[in-house]
Amino acid sequence: MISESAILNCFQHLVDLKKDDLVIVGSGDDAAVIKSQGKDLVHSIDISKVNSHFPEDSKPQDIAYRSIAVALSDLAAMGAYPAFISIGLTSNITDLKWYKQFTNGVEKILNEYQLKLVGGDITNGEISVCVNVFGYAYKNNILRSTAKVGDLIYVTGPLGEGRKGLEDWKNNQQSKYIKKFFNPKVDFNKSEYISKYANSCIDISDGLIKDLTRICKSSEVGAEIIYENIPITNDIDDLSCGDDYKLCYTCSPEFKDNEHISEDFCIGEIKSDTKIIIKKDNSPVNFKKHGWDSFE
Amino acid sequence: MISESAILNCFQHLVDLKKDDLVIVGSGDDAAVIKSQGKDLVHSIDISKVNSHFPEDSKPQDIAYRSIAVALSDLAAMGAYPAFISIGLTSNITDLKWYKQFTNGVEKILNEYQLKLVGGDITNGEISVCVNVFGYAYKNNILRSTAKVGDLIYVTGPLGEGRKGLEDWKNNQQSKYIKKFFNPKVDFNKSEYISKYANSCIDISDGLIKDLTRICKSSEVGAEIIYENIPITNDIDDLSCGDDYKLCYTCSPEFKDNEHISEDFCIGEIKSDTKIIIKKDNSPVNFKKHGWDSFE
Repeated sequence: MISESAILNCFQHLVDLKKDDLVIVGSGDDAAVIKSQGKDLVHSIDISKVNSHFPEDSKPQDIAYRSIAVALSDLAAMGAYPAFISIGLTSNITDLKWYKQFTNGVEKILNEYQLKLVGGDITNGEISVCVNVFGYAYKNNILRSTAKVGDLIYVTGPLGEGRKGLEDWKNNQQSKYIKKFFNPKVDFNKSEYISKYANSCIDISDGLIKDLTRICKSSEVGAEIIYENIPITNDIDDLSCGDDYKLCYTCSPEFKDNEHISEDFCIGEIKSDTKIIIKKDNSPVNFKKHGWDSFE
Repeated sequence: MISESAILNCFQHLVDLKKDDLVIVGSGDDAAVIKSQGKDLVHSIDISKVNSHFPEDSKPQDIAYRSIAVALSDLAAMGAYPAFISIGLTSNITDLKWYKQFTNGVEKILNEYQLKLVGGDITNGEISVCVNVFGYAYKNNILRSTAKVGDLIYVTGPLGEGRKGLEDWKNNQQSKYIKKFFNPKVDFNKSEYISKYANSCIDISDGLIKDLTRICKSSEVGAEIIYENIPITNDIDDLSCGDDYKLCYTCSPEFKDNEHISEDFCIGEIKSDTKIIIKKDNSPVNFKKHGWDSFE
């Protein structure tokens, strides 16, 4: 019979922390104690659920990696670097091997981003990973609510790669995109760079249109987008599919020739009229679906 | 049709925070930003799942209140006061009224403990509430690993009240215990007081025997308990049932007459032999089940 303590043992090597600058009390007590960094804490929480956010037969290491990566993406969108995480895992798997593989995925991403796992909880039920991420601003936090009329709108990479990866995986078709879905990369270097210049930023997790709408609503502005300038992977539905985890930011045109801004994709401009217009062949396109919603 | 944004709107009044000493960026962005308090952060994560931690037909306000209270209990066990929380809610309920009632429960406990809700996530699935709690030590954190041989062992209140409350509720029998199950109180005053004196502490969430075993294992000590000294509500199984959320702490005998220590229940003593012996009528009792485990 499996037990909570047997499962927790699988995680032990990840939290057997030497005393260090960050973690005063790690795993094994009622709570973790994290040393004061004297800096404002940036915190986000993200739930990834089986059959909503990843397929049921995903590899456990991919479930772990992906759930943590998509949570980290929120920190990048704030102009913040990650420092530590905690995980609330719900699982009904009774094979300890599954948990060992899950911890391999956790370990991989902890090493990749130099993060500490400071704590967690585990309970029995349909697989769901609740990831808490914690970090600190590189310079200033980049908010959703501070886009300015006249700002250029950028995306940091192609849309629809995750969507294509998931389709290829479902069709048993080998492709470079599968890794984009299961192991998305979060570009903290870019986040650090643009935190000096961008007026607003969001990560594209629920689809470009939906997420850009969030910036526009928060900032009380609108946007005009040129469809032909958007780097897509599949078709126009890439604008309303989730799973991209690229950044969408707005920035004054004076910075458009800056080294790391000029390499991004300028897709449009912030306007004062509070509508989002997407022009294809110079005519506005209508979208029935703006993006991903787990309840719809 | 229900949507994520409609549900999130139900929470809006709880996070429409005025700029204050604690929260710099509240809800509505990719992450929350919490002002540095220059103090070490105490953080715990706790998942409460339908049919494991609360019955399916619990009132939504009680689900919210209970899930948050049991998470806060971990801070009290660390000698820490609570400052803010975030919530990852999974729910498959399609009636917005349910969410409004849920937020009533959140609001009640936020007000009771003077907490801020700084963020959250919501997704579709079987009801589960992942609560993150954050706070700061009153004085020193009280760990599990620092019980000393010769310490007296205390519990701060009767065991089995939650168990009786749940049974009464299931039997449609009115009783004062039902509130103990659905709205457990966390005694932060006691936590503050004992943080000056206790050598170790844990909250009794999974049963006295299981939780005391955690102290003993962490501290590499044993314990001898006098059954007759334990304040129980029902029968001997109160020692291995969860849902109590009282504190169990150990303390040097020199403090036994202190005002708020003498009012607690002294149930035994920490011993050097690493066993836990519970004596009833002067003979050791054996327990098949040490406590609650969601996987067993």
